[in-house]
Amino acid sequence: MRIAILGIGLIGGSLAAALRARGVAATIAGCAPGGDASRAREIGLVDEAFTDPVAAVRGADWVVFAAPVPVMGSLMAQIAPALGPDTRITDCGSTKRSVVESARAAFGSAFSRYVAGHPIAGSERSGPDAANPDLFRGRRWVLCPVNDDQRAHCAALRQFLEPTGAVISEMSPDAHDRLFAEVSHWPHAVAFALGAAIGRGALADSAIEFSGGGLRDTSRIAASSPELWAGILLDNADAVLESAARYRAELDRIIGAIEARDRTTLVDSLEAASRWRRRLG
Amino acid sequence: MRIAILGIGLIGGSLAAALRARGVAATIAGCAPGGDASRAREIGLVDEAFTDPVAAVRGADWVVFAAPVPVMGSLMAQIAPALGPDTRITDCGSTKRSVVESARAAFGSAFSRYVAGHPIAGSERSGPDAANPDLFRGRRWVLCPVNDDQRAHCAALRQFLEPTGAVISEMSPDAHDRLFAEVSHWPHAVAFALGAAIGRGALADSAIEFSGGGLRDTSRIAASSPELWAGILLDNADAVLESAARYRAELDRIIGAIEARDRTTLVDSLEAASRWRRRLG
Repeated sequence: MRIAILGIGLIGGSLAAALRARGVAATIAGCAPGGDASRAREIGLVDEAFTDPVAAVRGADWVVFAAPVPVMGSLMAQIAPALGPDTRITDCGSTKRSVVESARAAFGSAFSRYVAGHPIAGSERSGPDAANPDLFRGRRWVLCPVNDDQRAHCAALRQFLEPTGAVISEMSPDAHDRLFAEVSHWPHAVAFALGAAIGRGALADSAIEFSGGGLRDTSRIAASSPELWAGILLDNADAVLESAARYRAELDRIIGAIEARDRTTLVDSLEAASRWRRRLG
Repeated sequence: MRIAILGIGLIGGSLAAALRARGVAATIAGCAPGGDASRAREIGLVDEAFTDPVAAVRGADWVVFAAPVPVMGSLMAQIAPALGPDTRITDCGSTKRSVVESARAAFGSAFSRYVAGHPIAGSERSGPDAANPDLFRGRRWVLCPVNDDQRAHCAALRQFLEPTGAVISEMSPDAHDRLFAEVSHWPHAVAFALGAAIGRGALADSAIEFSGGGLRDTSRIAASSPELWAGILLDNADAVLESAARYRAELDRIIGAIEARDRTTLVDSLEAASRWRRRLG
């Protein structure tokens, strides 16, 4: 078996590491612009390193797109002519509506051998050196088949992903994008806004010295890649803005209650939050 | 030596546990309304359990207020007449301007033997069962002396706190309240707003099922006590609202950039956040 992974950073590298760790008998080709692919080969994540995606996918049984969402479309269009007649395809993008549309436009008849996917496992770290064979273990991996051919193809993909230890779910691209705007994309914006407000404020240095575990956790994902997250937030803008509007209403209720010294309203908001968060465990 | 700790939840209980663990030779009296003090005695945190604070402080060499900020003032006024002529006093409140003013009003001449304090160590857990002798180890403990008598008194307090392993700093109540509005109080409101928006939204249940480590961390402190945090946010309202205004401006910049599909502005905000957060480490 030959597997081509396009984008060999945290996600692509961790997938390669998981396949390796579970002894999957395959030649793994990693492809990335710059030095990430040769770094991935150096540290044993992949057997072959490419900077040219067309060369990387040639002869592949599986092609996995693990590149940032904004480049996914052009990357798909670029390699489509080099896909074999039986090549199976998936991606690991954090948004699904736009990626599925890119795939539909790029792949032609190969679209039936594609299923969109999204492993729910990030980290504020990035690059092949952050790769971890256990990154996906026990985490969700969402698949978004959009027609019967793709639904049939899910069985093969589930088997392919088995070594990662991820728990596979299926939902529509639309349901996916709304749900992950709510539980991931918008929460990243919240953390980024907090980090930017503190980092641009007069107390930025003291905040480094005196922050406790609370701020450390609340702001952790603000250390994530700005380029990557700007891409995700813009790609899923409609759903993100819906989550943003509801968050902002809640925030304004809290600010208004503090301004008015309205303890009842304030406790009501804080209790709604606390009740939900305690369920999360 | 006799130590009275008024409020024997997470903070008061952990102080008692730290003194115990380091073998401080003292009788520790714990006081709380309800069953917390007897629970603290049951699990060995304190030697004596009281529900009446006046009885608890009688004969004490040290009185430590570890009660919620909103009850601190009336508690201080209540026990002031029972303080001995040499009793040393401190508190563990999360805000300092209002607590110092309460102490000034309550203690009379004993105000010179008081120093306001704030251990920078919270947890979303509460109650004596959450007590942990290492809660303060390596963490900051801020003291806020406001006159020369109190500055002199700091030496004794530093020695008293030594078994906790905390790193002691001194600053004014005003500087304290601005700094902790920025690094703790307002970040709690941000997390509460996020938890409330998700918890009241249509996706609250799916969010429990599909949230990853990012949301888990970002929202963790939203599981904190609503009553406690409403008290802190209202007590430090002026400073909290200043932090809130700067955060909201940053949030609006991010929302505006997503609405306008303005990648440059969006990346600028995300980078300011990421730069600061990476410094925090």
